[in-house]
Amino acid sequence: MTETRPYVDWKLMNDFMVDVFVKYGVPEEDAKICADVLLESDRRGIESHGCNRFKPIYLDRIKLGTLLPTTEIEIVKETPTTVVIDAHDGMGMVASHKMMEMLIEKAKIYGLAGGAIYNSTHYGIAGYWTGMAEKAGMIGISGTNARPSVAPTFGVEPMMGTNPMTFTIPTDEEFPFNFDCATCIMQNGKIEFYERQGKETPEGCVVSKSGETMTDSGQILKDIRAGKAALLPLGGLGEATSGYKGYGFTTIVEIFSAAFAGGPFMKALSGVDENGDPKMYKLGHFFFVINPEFFMGLDVFKKTAGDICRGLRASEKAPGVERIYTAGEKEYLAWQDRKDKGVPVGESIQKELIQLRDELGLTQYRFPFE
Amino acid sequence: MTETRPYVDWKLMNDFMVDVFVKYGVPEEDAKICADVLLESDRRGIESHGCNRFKPIYLDRIKLGTLLPTTEIEIVKETPTTVVIDAHDGMGMVASHKMMEMLIEKAKIYGLAGGAIYNSTHYGIAGYWTGMAEKAGMIGISGTNARPSVAPTFGVEPMMGTNPMTFTIPTDEEFPFNFDCATCIMQNGKIEFYERQGKETPEGCVVSKSGETMTDSGQILKDIRAGKAALLPLGGLGEATSGYKGYGFTTIVEIFSAAFAGGPFMKALSGVDENGDPKMYKLGHFFFVINPEFFMGLDVFKKTAGDICRGLRASEKAPGVERIYTAGEKEYLAWQDRKDKGVPVGESIQKELIQLRDELGLTQYRFPFE
Repeated sequence: MTETRPYVDWKLMNDFMVDVFVKYGVPEEDAKICADVLLESDRRGIESHGCNRFKPIYLDRIKLGTLLPTTEIEIVKETPTTVVIDAHDGMGMVASHKMMEMLIEKAKIYGLAGGAIYNSTHYGIAGYWTGMAEKAGMIGISGTNARPSVAPTFGVEPMMGTNPMTFTIPTDEEFPFNFDCATCIMQNGKIEFYERQGKETPEGCVVSKSGETMTDSGQILKDIRAGKAALLPLGGLGEATSGYKGYGFTTIVEIFSAAFAGGPFMKALSGVDENGDPKMYKLGHFFFVINPEFFMGLDVFKKTAGDICRGLRASEKAPGVERIYTAGEKEYLAWQDRKDKGVPVGESIQKELIQLRDELGLTQYRFPFE
Repeated sequence: MTETRPYVDWKLMNDFMVDVFVKYGVPEEDAKICADVLLESDRRGIESHGCNRFKPIYLDRIKLGTLLPTTEIEIVKETPTTVVIDAHDGMGMVASHKMMEMLIEKAKIYGLAGGAIYNSTHYGIAGYWTGMAEKAGMIGISGTNARPSVAPTFGVEPMMGTNPMTFTIPTDEEFPFNFDCATCIMQNGKIEFYERQGKETPEGCVVSKSGETMTDSGQILKDIRAGKAALLPLGGLGEATSGYKGYGFTTIVEIFSAAFAGGPFMKALSGVDENGDPKMYKLGHFFFVINPEFFMGLDVFKKTAGDICRGLRASEKAPGVERIYTAGEKEYLAWQDRKDKGVPVGESIQKELIQLRDELGLTQYRFPFE
């Protein structure tokens, strides 16, 4: 696929995002974390969660008052191996960064650590947090609940979030095994991306109240927000192709995201009150860190994990298929392609960036697409 | 579905299985563990892993020499939160029982505990081990590798096991949230069950070398063992319905089952040597225990988990659907139905039981179907 969008230099985009966040009231150190999380998504080619979300999911919500730019991180409970944080409706990415720093230190000493955050907001790609553990030579596991949009097996009502269950696992390769995706077939961010591109959503991923498949991306997003459509869990509709397994994974994430901290879940995360007015999101996230040094050692672990990935990629391909991937490989390839070029920015994002720059008087910035 | 098979009293079946295991050289205390694991599967209605596996997967393998009846449990490494065990080709269920006893004690003190077993054999339903944690008021997570039978996305070669990733989670209900299933669409045990029943395997779950779906259950089992067919990961063929997500979960289990202990994986678990002769299975399992008391407490956790399950079951059903289930509910209903009746035993198992009884001279046993 040839890239036709103009690229923006990584440092330019990062500095701009930091300055915009600061103008919106986010403390500079926090703004650096948030910009890095969003751009890490673009570095990995996961454009559903990158700078296309900068304005609608973060800036607009700060303006609306459903996301506080300053994050009061209250450590509600701490033990040698565990942490529970109340994020007080601040930046979920800032609270998550603090959480992972604490858990990594705990796992260095105790081998295992776990944490839960409640009263939080969108924490970006889950893989950023699990990646922090991996950079420290450990395994990271994380998940989050979200606005209800997924129906249980045999149901049609959007009850649970797209609920990623994410693992980043060290290997002896150039890149880790990084499994970072929603437990439904397709998540909102992907449909938002399709909508931005003016594309239809593939069949079989979304079900209407009457049980029909929907493909109009804009209509799906509207209907999901109105509770009139639901995403389907991994495995699809009913039990024939084991949709109950995806439903199980989604439910585990829903439970883990709320139950450790005693935070809200499912319909309480709709983002609107009984009158339909916007309210705080009150999201919950969970985090686990596992230190292989407390088992047979990091080198043994990395070698085995790498051998498994290499073995899978070298296995027999289906007729006509050129390549078998392992999780995290495509993200690594995206980074290899983009690291010297920058972040590709489509037209709608270009407009947002220029508008933000002009509104906020950040006159020192000039984008290559102007 | 009306049950037409005769029932055998739970205690009769348990005592018989213990006595048979002892006759096969399994120490009595170990035999009690193994019989309980197998019958727990039948109690839950998971007949693919219950007494139908007693002879082929355990007794026949002891006789063949690929499963040692006495289990030398060597604790290779132990820290306050972790354990690595070499099971020395003994009974995987016995080593797993020891592991879970140790991890539960560790998680009582440290909040989190994790373990890995290598050089092991089939450990029964993963949910038995996670259920031990749940009975102690904790969350259990476990998985195991197995004979290669699942192809990666875009591949056709059986590379990984059916690799369950299992969670048992305490709730405030009569039964826990128990998610115990393979990460492929359908696992070998289910196909074995279909074969015993003389039924076809549903379409779309198994792929041949040429990329075609197979349905002949007996042929599938033969071809999988011969490496000529492969199971498909949850999400199905290719990427359209997110087969790469199921592939990711399967790979995580493959990595976790081998890498913590540095044990064998994938093709090394075929159960046959280069000459096609039987060899030791060398399976690996992993186990994690999480104690909610180290977060906001067990009661808070159970209430939230229960509320989520109740909310899902009460949500809007698809037209024509009577009931929405949560994971573990069907197993609980199976037990409610069977607890006073006993274990239903089909004709092929009846023959195996009578033959075993007669061969081993266990003349004190008489079955209701005689």
